[in-house]
Amino acid sequence: MDEKNYGPVYAQDFTFGLTEDDKLLLDCGRKLGPVNIRFETYGKLDDKKSNAILILHALSGNAHVAGYLDGDKAKIGWWDNMVGPGKAFDTDKYFIVCSNVIGGCSGSTGPRSFNPESQNPSKIYNMDFPVITIADMVRAQHRLMKHLGIEKWLSLAGGSMGGMQALEWAVSYPEAVNSVMPIATTSRLSPQSIAFNWVGREAIMRDPSWNNGNYDIAKVPESGLAIARMLGHITYLSDESMDKKFGRELQEIKSYSFDFKHNFKVESYLKHQGEKFVERFDANSYLYISRAMDYFDLSERFGGNLEVALSQVKSSFLVISFSSDWLFTPEESLKIVEALRVNSIDVTYCDIKSIYGHDAFLLEVDVLGRLISDFLKCRYEEIK
Amino acid sequence: MDEKNYGPVYAQDFTFGLTEDDKLLLDCGRKLGPVNIRFETYGKLDDKKSNAILILHALSGNAHVAGYLDGDKAKIGWWDNMVGPGKAFDTDKYFIVCSNVIGGCSGSTGPRSFNPESQNPSKIYNMDFPVITIADMVRAQHRLMKHLGIEKWLSLAGGSMGGMQALEWAVSYPEAVNSVMPIATTSRLSPQSIAFNWVGREAIMRDPSWNNGNYDIAKVPESGLAIARMLGHITYLSDESMDKKFGRELQEIKSYSFDFKHNFKVESYLKHQGEKFVERFDANSYLYISRAMDYFDLSERFGGNLEVALSQVKSSFLVISFSSDWLFTPEESLKIVEALRVNSIDVTYCDIKSIYGHDAFLLEVDVLGRLISDFLKCRYEEIK
Repeated sequence: MDEKNYGPVYAQDFTFGLTEDDKLLLDCGRKLGPVNIRFETYGKLDDKKSNAILILHALSGNAHVAGYLDGDKAKIGWWDNMVGPGKAFDTDKYFIVCSNVIGGCSGSTGPRSFNPESQNPSKIYNMDFPVITIADMVRAQHRLMKHLGIEKWLSLAGGSMGGMQALEWAVSYPEAVNSVMPIATTSRLSPQSIAFNWVGREAIMRDPSWNNGNYDIAKVPESGLAIARMLGHITYLSDESMDKKFGRELQEIKSYSFDFKHNFKVESYLKHQGEKFVERFDANSYLYISRAMDYFDLSERFGGNLEVALSQVKSSFLVISFSSDWLFTPEESLKIVEALRVNSIDVTYCDIKSIYGHDAFLLEVDVLGRLISDFLKCRYEEIK
Repeated sequence: MDEKNYGPVYAQDFTFGLTEDDKLLLDCGRKLGPVNIRFETYGKLDDKKSNAILILHALSGNAHVAGYLDGDKAKIGWWDNMVGPGKAFDTDKYFIVCSNVIGGCSGSTGPRSFNPESQNPSKIYNMDFPVITIADMVRAQHRLMKHLGIEKWLSLAGGSMGGMQALEWAVSYPEAVNSVMPIATTSRLSPQSIAFNWVGREAIMRDPSWNNGNYDIAKVPESGLAIARMLGHITYLSDESMDKKFGRELQEIKSYSFDFKHNFKVESYLKHQGEKFVERFDANSYLYISRAMDYFDLSERFGGNLEVALSQVKSSFLVISFSSDWLFTPEESLKIVEALRVNSIDVTYCDIKSIYGHDAFLLEVDVLGRLISDFLKCRYEEIK
C-alpha cells in the first residue's frame, strides 16, 4: 500500500487578526488576534476552484491528515488510509485542506501561544486564553477559506469533534458548503460525555504541576493529562472490542502479581496511551478543546430546536455512525438525519456495523472509504 | 414509610487470627491477622438457625445496611428500603447479617488498620497490606459465620461486588449456602471495568498527597479519590438516566460562563459526589477493593470454564440484572444463568427493565423487592 501513501507534505501558516478590525470575534464576546492557522493541503485546486474539501479533526488531531510531514516517515497523517492518490479522499481529483483548530497545540493559536498583550511575564496565554466554541473554530476556518480563495467547499468531512465542526459549517455558512459528511458525531454533547470531559479536566486541573495553567515546559501536568487521555481511550473503544483485543489476558506475567502495577494487557495499553499522549499534546489545549465540545449544541441558538437549526442549510449530507459507538451513538446521528429529512434536505444515512466503538471512524477504512468515495464522486459530478 | 424503617442498630466486632494458626491464609500466599470484622445483625436467629441471610456490600458499601446507626437518623443504612420489618428482607422473619469486607475502611481490617508487625513508624499497614481477593473476603466472612454459630445461610444476596461475593460463597462453601441472589454482577470482571478501575487507581496513586500510601489523616489524597469516585459514578448511571436527570441543563447560571467551573448540572452532581466520598472513604481501601474486583474470575481456578466452576454448587439461584446496566450487563448475568442451567441447577433469572443503569440495584426497590421477597419465602418454606 506504500505507493498509495501521500508523500512529503509541509505545514503552512496563515496569520490574521493583526489589527483590531481584523481580529476574530468569539462567542464569549472577546476578540482573538493575532491568530495563526496551521494547515496542510494535498492535491491541486482546479481552475473553477470547485474541488476543495475541508477535513476537520477530532479532539486530539491536527492539520497533518495524510502523508509524511517534512518527508519523515515516522510522522504519518492521522487519516492517511483515507486521504491520498486513489483513496477515498482522492488527491488526484480533489484539493484537500486540513487545519489545526484554534485552541489547539499543533501550530494554530491556542492557550500555549504567545500573547503580545499578556500581563503575565511568560507572555503565554495559558488560562487567559478565551474559552472558545466549535463555532469559533469554524469562524477561523472561514478566514482560511477566504485566504485560499475558495468560495464553496465541495465537501466538509470530520469524525467526532470534526463532525461537529462540519455541522456547524453547514449552519453558519450555508452558501459556502456544497456537501457535508458528519461521522460518528452528535448535534449536541450528551450529559454523559460532558461528565467524562469534566473528570478528565479535573484530573488535569488538580495536578499540582498544572499550576493554574502556568506550567513550565519542563514540568507539565503529565499525570493529569495521562489520566484524561486514558479515560478518553476507554470511551473510544467498545466493551466488545476490548474483550476481543485484551480480554483478561495478563501482560508479561503468568499469574496475578498481587500488586498495583499493570497486570492486565488492557492496563498496559492504557498506560502506554497515556504516556504517548503527554509527549505530543498540551494540557491546557485539552481543557479548551474539551470545553468547546461541552458547549456544542447546534440547536441552542434556535430555541433548542434542531429542525429549525437545520432549516437553512443548503448542503447535501452523508451522515455516518457506527453500531458499537457508545460515546456518539447511532441514535445521535439519527436525530440529525430526522431533522434534515423534516426539512426535505438530501441526506444519506449509514450506520456501519462495527465492533470498534467510537474509534471505528479511524479504523473501518474499507466501508467508510467506499461510502465517502461514492458520495464525493456524485457531488463532484453534479457541479461539473 | 418511617414506621417500617428499622430502628437503632449497633455495630459489632469479631476479631480472629490472634495466633499464627488462626490467621487467615490469603490467595496471595500471605497470612492476615489479627483480623477484625465489623458487622451488624437485624432480626432474630430462629431456634434451628435456619433463617440467617448474609447481605454482601459493593465497593463503597459497609456493614450498615439498614436502620439508624447508633440511633442517629442521619446514618441510615445503604439498603434500608430493602431490609426491615415487612420489607423484602423481612427482619420479622429473617436474621440478617451484613459485614464490612476485609480491605475496607468501615471497621473491618484494611490497609488503614493498625499492623502490630509493621516496620513503619506509623504502625499502619498502608501499602504493606496484602492484596486481597473476593475469595479472601468470603473466607473472612466464613469465620464470622462460624463465630455466629450458623451452619448454613438461608440465602446470600448482594449487588455489584456483593454479587461477586455471593457467587464465590456458592462455589467455595457449597454446603453452607441454601440459596444465592447475585444482582447486577458478573462472574469475571470485564476488561472495560478493569480499565475504569485502573484509571481510578492511577488518579489516586498519582496524587502527591497519596505519598506511596503513607498519607496523614490531615492530608489525604482528596483529589485522586474524588476523581476515582466521579469516574465511578458515570459508570453507575446510564446515558438515558443522565439525559433525564440532567440533560444539558445549567446549574445556577443562565448561560455558559465561558470558564472551567461547573456550568452543567451533571458537573455539579459529580463534584458533589466526589466531595462527599472523600469525607467517608479511604483512598488505600479504594485501591485494594477495586483490585480485588479486577482479580475476580470465578472460572479461573477451573481452567477458565464457568460451567465447571459452577458444577459443584448446591444452592438455588435468583439472578437479577438491569436492562440499562452497561457496567455489569445483562449478558454477563446470562452467562452465569446458562452455566447454571447446563449443570441442572435451579435458577430463576430476571432482567429488570430500568433506565437507572448499574445503580438500579439500589433504586428499583419495588420490582427487586418483590422478586427477593418471593424467592426468600419459597426457600424458607422449603426447609421449614
